[in-house]
This record gives sequence, C-alpha cells and structure tokens, in this order.
Amino acid sequence: MKSDYSFTLLATDGMARRGRIDTWRGDVQTPAFMPVGTVGTVKGMYPEQVRDTGADILLGNTYHLMLRPGAERVAALGGLHDFMDWQRPILTDSGGFQVMSLTKLRKLTEKGVTFRSHIDGSAHELTPERSIEIQTLLDSDIIMQLDECIPLPSEHKEMERAMELSLRWAQRSKDAFGNQPHRSLHGIVQGGDNAELRGRSAAGLKSIGFNGYSIGGLAVGEPQEVMFRVLSEITPELPTDKPRYLMGVGKPDDILGGIERGVDMFDCVHPTRAGRHGHAYTRFGVINLKNARHKDDPRPLDEESPNPNCRRFSRAYLHHLIRTEEMLGAMILSQINLSYYQQLCIGARTAIEAGTLADYAAQTRATWAAGDIAVI
Amino acid sequence: MKSDYSFTLLATDGMARRGRIDTWRGDVQTPAFMPVGTVGTVKGMYPEQVRDTGADILLGNTYHLMLRPGAERVAALGGLHDFMDWQRPILTDSGGFQVMSLTKLRKLTEKGVTFRSHIDGSAHELTPERSIEIQTLLDSDIIMQLDECIPLPSEHKEMERAMELSLRWAQRSKDAFGNQPHRSLHGIVQGGDNAELRGRSAAGLKSIGFNGYSIGGLAVGEPQEVMFRVLSEITPELPTDKPRYLMGVGKPDDILGGIERGVDMFDCVHPTRAGRHGHAYTRFGVINLKNARHKDDPRPLDEESPNPNCRRFSRAYLHHLIRTEEMLGAMILSQINLSYYQQLCIGARTAIEAGTLADYAAQTRATWAAGDIAVI
Repeated sequence: MKSDYSFTLLATDGMARRGRIDTWRGDVQTPAFMPVGTVGTVKGMYPEQVRDTGADILLGNTYHLMLRPGAERVAALGGLHDFMDWQRPILTDSGGFQVMSLTKLRKLTEKGVTFRSHIDGSAHELTPERSIEIQTLLDSDIIMQLDECIPLPSEHKEMERAMELSLRWAQRSKDAFGNQPHRSLHGIVQGGDNAELRGRSAAGLKSIGFNGYSIGGLAVGEPQEVMFRVLSEITPELPTDKPRYLMGVGKPDDILGGIERGVDMFDCVHPTRAGRHGHAYTRFGVINLKNARHKDDPRPLDEESPNPNCRRFSRAYLHHLIRTEEMLGAMILSQINLSYYQQLCIGARTAIEAGTLADYAAQTRATWAAGDIAVI
Repeated sequence: MKSDYSFTLLATDGMARRGRIDTWRGDVQTPAFMPVGTVGTVKGMYPEQVRDTGADILLGNTYHLMLRPGAERVAALGGLHDFMDWQRPILTDSGGFQVMSLTKLRKLTEKGVTFRSHIDGSAHELTPERSIEIQTLLDSDIIMQLDECIPLPSEHKEMERAMELSLRWAQRSKDAFGNQPHRSLHGIVQGGDNAELRGRSAAGLKSIGFNGYSIGGLAVGEPQEVMFRVLSEITPELPTDKPRYLMGVGKPDDILGGIERGVDMFDCVHPTRAGRHGHAYTRFGVINLKNARHKDDPRPLDEESPNPNCRRFSRAYLHHLIRTEEMLGAMILSQINLSYYQQLCIGARTAIEAGTLADYAAQTRATWAAGDIAVI
C-alpha cells in the first residue's frame, strides 16, 4: 500500500497531457472523468457498475453529504468509501458551489458563509476550516479548498473581490489541511473571464503550494469559446507536475476541448442527468430516445460500441422504458453515458501517448457532426 | 432444444409438491416465485440481476403491454424475450385482472370486455380470443385464459355468474389456443370463497383439459385464513400431473402457506413494490428501513444471508438511500426482496424433497416471529 499521493506526467501532445495520479486507494489515469456521487451514490448505478464503465475515481458533494447523512455520521460509519462501498479514490468538492446555487438566506463574510438547508431550512455554517474538516471526516482522498464561485458575466470589481477572497481562503484551507501525506489538497483558480485576474489567482495559489490545481468559475453561464479561451490562458500558468481539474464540466465536446487545453480531470452530473431524461451519448453524438422515430426501431444504439448495453437493447425498448418512466431506462442510459465519457477519455489518453490527439479529436468531432444513423 | 412443454412431479410432502416445468426456453423448478415484469422490465433491475436472484421465469402483464408498447409492436420486434433480453420462460396473464382493477368505463358482455386505457382513455376490447392472440404475439411460454375476477366478499349469485362466464371463456380460450406444443395454456379456477362453486369450476376446466391450472379470485380482499381454506379445498380437486399457479400472491407467509397447500407457482409485485417503499424482507421478517432506528446502524441487514447485498451495505446507508429517495435504494431493496423470495422457495424445495417441510415452515415462521435484531 502506497502511503503518499503523487502525480506523474507520462506524455504530452501540444498542451494536452497524459498522466497518472497515485493514491493509496488506487491510481487514476488522466485525462480522467469523475462520475458524481452526489449524496453517496452515482444515481441509478451500483458502485461496481460505475467501476465497470472505466471510472477510477468518484466525486462526492460536501454540501449534500453534510446535510444528509452528515459528515460526523459518515465518519462514525467508517467514511464515505465504506458507506457507499466504493473502495477506490474519492474527490470531494468544498461545498461552496452548491451553497451558492441551492440555498437561500445565505450570508457571505470574510469568515465563511452561513446558509439555510434547501431541504429543511436548518441553519449551517461553512468556513474554509469547516470544509476541510468535513472533507476529512468523509475520508476524501482529494480535497478542495473553499472558494467563492460567481456567475458569468460579472463585473470586474466583483470578479476581483471573489478571486481575492478565494485566495485568502486558500491559505486558510492549506493551514487547516496541515500535514496529511495520504491526501491531496487542491487550490482553486478563480478570476472569472479575465486573464489578468486568473493569472494573479494562479500565482497566489502557486506561492501557497498545493498538490493540485482546480479551475473554478467556469461553466457558469459563459459561451464555450470563453471557457476555452480562459483555459488556454490559464493552464500554462499552472505547474506542470501537478494535476489540473476543471470543475463541473461538462458535455463531451467541452471535455475534449478541455483535454486539448491541458486539463487532466473533469466531473459533471450531465451524463447521469441526461440519461434520466432519455438522452444517450454515443459516437453519433446525443440521441433523444423519447423521440418517436425510435418507437419501432429494432436496432441497438451502436452495434459497434464496446459497451454491451449499447448493443443488447433495441432503440424501441429504450424508447419504451423512457416513455413509461421505468427506472431501468434511467439506469441503462446513465450507464451508457458514463461509459461513453470514459471511452472518450480512454481514447484521448491513447492518442496523447501516440502524439495523435489532433487526429483523434478531429475524427471524434466528425462522427458527432455526422449524427445518428438514418431513420429506419 | 426441447420442443414440448411438460411438468414432472418430483416429490411430495403432505399436500406440498416439488416439481419441474420443462420448456424449450429452460426449466422452472417448483415451487416457483415469478417476479413481475409489468411493462417489459422488473422494476429497477437488469434481467441478469433478476436471474441471479434465482428466478427461473418472469411474469408479463398483457394489459400493460397491449397498451404500451402494443402486442403487434412487440411481435415485430421479435417477441417479449428479445424485447427485454430475458431468454428464459415467460408467463403472461390474460389482462382481465388489470382491466377490472385499473380501467374505467368498462363494459362486460358474453363476448368479452371493452374498456378505456388508464393512460390515454383510448378504447380497447379484450375477448378470450384476443387475449390468446396478444399473449401469442408476445411469444409467451405459459398463457392464461381470459377470466372474470371479482372481489371478495361477493354475493353467491355474482360468484356463480362470474365462475360460469369464466368457464365458457375457458372453452373459447382453449379453442383459440389450438395446437401449440411449445406453449402451455392454463385454465383459471374461479368461484370466490365457495367450495361448491370452486369444485364445479375445477371440474369444468378438467373436462376441457389444460396444461396447467391457475387459481384466480384470491388475494382480492379476503382474510388469509379464507384464502388458505379455499386452497386446501381446491388443490385436491386439480390433476396431480399439472402445475397449479396461485395468481397474484403474495407476502412470504402467504407463499409458505400456499406451498403447504399444494401450490406450485406464485407471482406478486409485492417484493419490488415493498422495496421501492423501503421495506426489506429477510429471515427476520420485514424491516422498515425508513425507520430512524437504522440511521446510525453500521450493521448489514443480515450478515449471514447468501445475498451479498444483505451483507455489504449498512442499514445506515440503506436508510440514507431511502430517505434521500435515491434510485439505488429501490434497486437494492428490490433485489434483496426478490432474492429472499427465491431463497424461501429454494428452502421449501429442499425440505419437500427431504420430507421435512413442516420443520422448515415452523423454523421459518419462528425466525419471522422473533423479528429483527435488537436496536444497537
């Protein structure tokens, strides 16, 4: 059992990186997509089914878990890994993003943020120190600093204020984290869509020193081209020997674009949420199985997919399950989408190793653009 | 591949029977519990997960499937087995029970029943002939005659009328079924809670001649003791060389009592429905995981269970999943309940073979009565 956390950069191709994170709970091949296990479960999937899609690591939501079942309770039950029976690495967010997006009556001060639960209205406080404490109670392997994430577009003054607050919270998070060699702590780059603010944020975080660097404050309302521009500006400012994690992103073309711009890690609820709504991601792009065109179609989603669920069930059956709102429809499409996201990352890893990421990306985008097979 | 349907009585113990149904799609060990795949899926479970609980055969609902996706559509897609990817035997009901319980504006005549769909109000007709046709389109292996199932208590005159109509429909069903040696057709005994009516029904069905005999019109509002009394009266009237199927029953103690009274086959939505509502069946009886007593309980449901899901997840985790209404909670508890039902049947089979069913039943009831393990 390895007792330390480390990142190894294995290959590069342009800005893109192929790497490996080693933790005592197992390794994470990068670029990596992390399925989201919001309240201690990836919705609609057993943990071994998630692993079988190719996932090396899950994300847990501090905000949701601190409310239900509670961090101290999870700790008393042996930590999040035992609680949900996922023995591989877990990354947790700081809780800040959900506090900002889900709660009412919240109050932000230098100390932290107080808010009322979206479930029962109970009062809670989240500070940089308490966020680290909660994530440690959950027994997270990769911990995020508390930051303030604001929407885009925002005023320059507001972006600067939130970035500077996040930087002060970064130092407090580092102090609170202390010496935990078997865990990793990430600082979070903020600064909205402004290159100068982002640069100051990155410089400040580097001088504090973290095991990894997250890129926050993106996918918060801006066009994809703005997100890609910010990524292209910021990843060269980050240490090459630490992993970079683009938080809360995204759809497959966001992920491919992020990989091309030097991002190592991604997470998003989109694949499972889209699956519950009847949308399937395959090499043909996104397919809406609610559409009546599938009603009598005996063909599988993609008969050449490496994923058995893409080959064994007809489009007509999947359409039927979604239309009748059967759980199995959400279960199958969540599995299909997470599996496709992993295939996308696996393909990118192989391409980066071979120095052919541009070809891989062009080919992938071409099949997306060609769209689904013709109506029967 | 065997082309014919057959039933072999392997052992008896008192009234209880241990048998095997052979079909060209595989064998069914009896006593058998058939999970219900209402609209082409056992709710919350992949077909291989259902099989792994020990199920040899599924039940499909003609009423639900004729409305969505439609029998002709299922046939065009290769039949229900391919549609849902369950390659073992399937038994279908006639649709009559759901027409009576779910629809409005229905009209019953000698010819059949007309009704409006509970989904969209569309008009449909179900006759004995059409029911056989639909079940054949679904490619069912074990087909039910259309019958009229009435609630209990009912007037004697009404029970007699429904029983006699069901008998006339039995003859029409037999005629419509024709010669299909790879399928089985069941007649359905009706007659309410009256022994004389039940006896006339059984005699009438035997003189028509069926591959199996179902017992309908029970679990329709009567106390368990009435159901058991009717079973004790009717199973001796049925041929010993054909399987007997008690329709829509029940909870574990109903099933154990049915086995003791000579029933070979059971089906019920109860195990999966109870699972979705947070109820787990184990050797300790039924456990309500919504109850706060489980909130901090690190113990599994039953650490000695042969079912891994009963051992790997804590009660606290299952409580959390149910309270947060996560799909995985319903998925796990449905699996646990179906698995327990199969364990109950497997135990009964072994006991009947050994001539020890009375001991097995007493021991099983004693552990149910002892209840759950003490609060921690």
